[in-house]
Amino acid sequence: MRIIIDAQGGDNAPREIVHGAIQAAEAYGVDITLVGRGDEILEALREIGVDTLPAGVEIFNADDVVDMHDEATDVVHSHRNSSLVQGLKLLADGNGDAFISAGSTGALLTAATLLVRRIRGIRRAAFGPTMPTKTGQCIIIDSGANAECTPEFMLQFGCMGSFCARKILGIENPRVGLLNIGAEDTKGTPLQKESYALLKQASDNGIINFVGNVEARDVPLGAVDVVVCDGFSGNVLLKSIEGTALFMASQLKKMFGGSIGGKIGYLFCKKGVKDFKKLMDYREVGGTMLLGISKPVIKAHGSSDALAIRNAVRQAKQAVESGIVEEIRANISSMKVPKE
Amino acid sequence: MRIIIDAQGGDNAPREIVHGAIQAAEAYGVDITLVGRGDEILEALREIGVDTLPAGVEIFNADDVVDMHDEATDVVHSHRNSSLVQGLKLLADGNGDAFISAGSTGALLTAATLLVRRIRGIRRAAFGPTMPTKTGQCIIIDSGANAECTPEFMLQFGCMGSFCARKILGIENPRVGLLNIGAEDTKGTPLQKESYALLKQASDNGIINFVGNVEARDVPLGAVDVVVCDGFSGNVLLKSIEGTALFMASQLKKMFGGSIGGKIGYLFCKKGVKDFKKLMDYREVGGTMLLGISKPVIKAHGSSDALAIRNAVRQAKQAVESGIVEEIRANISSMKVPKE
Repeated sequence: MRIIIDAQGGDNAPREIVHGAIQAAEAYGVDITLVGRGDEILEALREIGVDTLPAGVEIFNADDVVDMHDEATDVVHSHRNSSLVQGLKLLADGNGDAFISAGSTGALLTAATLLVRRIRGIRRAAFGPTMPTKTGQCIIIDSGANAECTPEFMLQFGCMGSFCARKILGIENPRVGLLNIGAEDTKGTPLQKESYALLKQASDNGIINFVGNVEARDVPLGAVDVVVCDGFSGNVLLKSIEGTALFMASQLKKMFGGSIGGKIGYLFCKKGVKDFKKLMDYREVGGTMLLGISKPVIKAHGSSDALAIRNAVRQAKQAVESGIVEEIRANISSMKVPKE
Repeated sequence: MRIIIDAQGGDNAPREIVHGAIQAAEAYGVDITLVGRGDEILEALREIGVDTLPAGVEIFNADDVVDMHDEATDVVHSHRNSSLVQGLKLLADGNGDAFISAGSTGALLTAATLLVRRIRGIRRAAFGPTMPTKTGQCIIIDSGANAECTPEFMLQFGCMGSFCARKILGIENPRVGLLNIGAEDTKGTPLQKESYALLKQASDNGIINFVGNVEARDVPLGAVDVVVCDGFSGNVLLKSIEGTALFMASQLKKMFGGSIGGKIGYLFCKKGVKDFKKLMDYREVGGTMLLGISKPVIKAHGSSDALAIRNAVRQAKQAVESGIVEEIRANISSMKVPKE
């Protein structure tokens, strides 16, 4: 298996990307193609004492870099020789099994859609990141790729999220919930009401296990395994969980740092604090799969360090092995809304 | 000042409501009208050793009760003699200065709109609860009264929230942000783009201090004092902060309970843990004002106990004294969008 990595994407590129990739090649026994500026990649390799390329690791030279200020919809044309575009072309052409980038989310979404293309029948690709919950973890789909959605998109998000929870997270019969502002099926805007009906129908047909509406409050508490939402609300959900965790971590720090007693207390429950931080650390997850694209594409966090990239590679490997893309393709007929 | 209280609303009615009201009457020097079943209210009073009504405390008999299953849009007609409807009528008729209920949110919203009415020119009443943040607190408006909004509603939410932050929270020049999925003014759906323009115009005219888009992640971190959003996203934001806080509190408990070291640690930082819990405790806030109604109406949490009701009364008193309703009325001409 070969994983293609955008060596120039993200705040800590190329150094941390390259370091993480080399660690992952060894840890997970995968081949790696590093796409980016050859000289910078070689320099990053030398820094960790790698003077000759390890077996299975290749460099594909791409001199241009996409940055956060570039117009996302235009990069395929304006940055033809960028690591992002060239890496996705390698994937599209079959020169690798999955692609990882820590660069611009919008550019990755657009370029992956144009170059690798969606699975036939899928209306929109969506991000389905995994969040820790009180009882395990859950997938939030879509978490920001599509601010405006139709009920059909939502049906497809629910199915793709459910397949992902089963094939990648290993949850046998994932509970799929629709993000809403109340439990009753009359709640929300027309989008939620129509999506509810479609998800229920898919559940009646045995494609997914739809458990109804879920309120945002119950997501971190573990009420469902998959949360279906438009990209706007999904982004609000995901980011507010993240922000609250950061806020509370800072309160925790204050609590421990505030007094001598607190400092002594900290010594006694150091391990607990460490577990707690780990649970909330995006670096442990690695990245987010772009579901609906015809080959696995992973978006790593913009501030990814070597550990995050290493975990993103583990995740890409899982995605390839899980057969998630094939699963979506095989079920596409159940994920369509007949035109009236 | 007289505060009218729905003695039959909420999970712990009438007992906790009555107890909290009596505490508040003494603590804040306000007169109280308890609306509900006279005999049940008297029994609740006897339980705390109150055999004769304290000066300034009155009971207004209303035998019917609105419950969570009643159709919200219909209670004004179907539950004419309920504590909710009768209490709001007392407010509308000038027999009190503010109204508090811990009952059904939807019923309160509809009944307050029909009986007390909106301030002339205000298109929709909105909930603007206060949340703790890393740097203080912020108002989230609308947090669920209106799932679907127009840009004009959003402009009015921004202005009402800003007046509230200034007059009630005492923030001199509140930073008003628009909840969005990115910082750039091109982000979001048409609703966000049009609302952005209206809020910016209001800011240019000196009515509010609009600081642009705010991402959900930065809300708990204290980026703004007022978050403007449609009721759907606002509800997701508010509830996910609440759920994450609950989730993390349970992790914290596990951390302290997990080992003997943790238990000893807990003893050393007990005060910190207590502060932390207090920060996240809705009972400390009391309730949420329904902004845009022509007199102060406060929604207390459904599971309010005596402490929460006591704080809701404090909040109602603040709302009356702040002159927030008059402030909205005085600025209404700047909060309208001319018809094209």
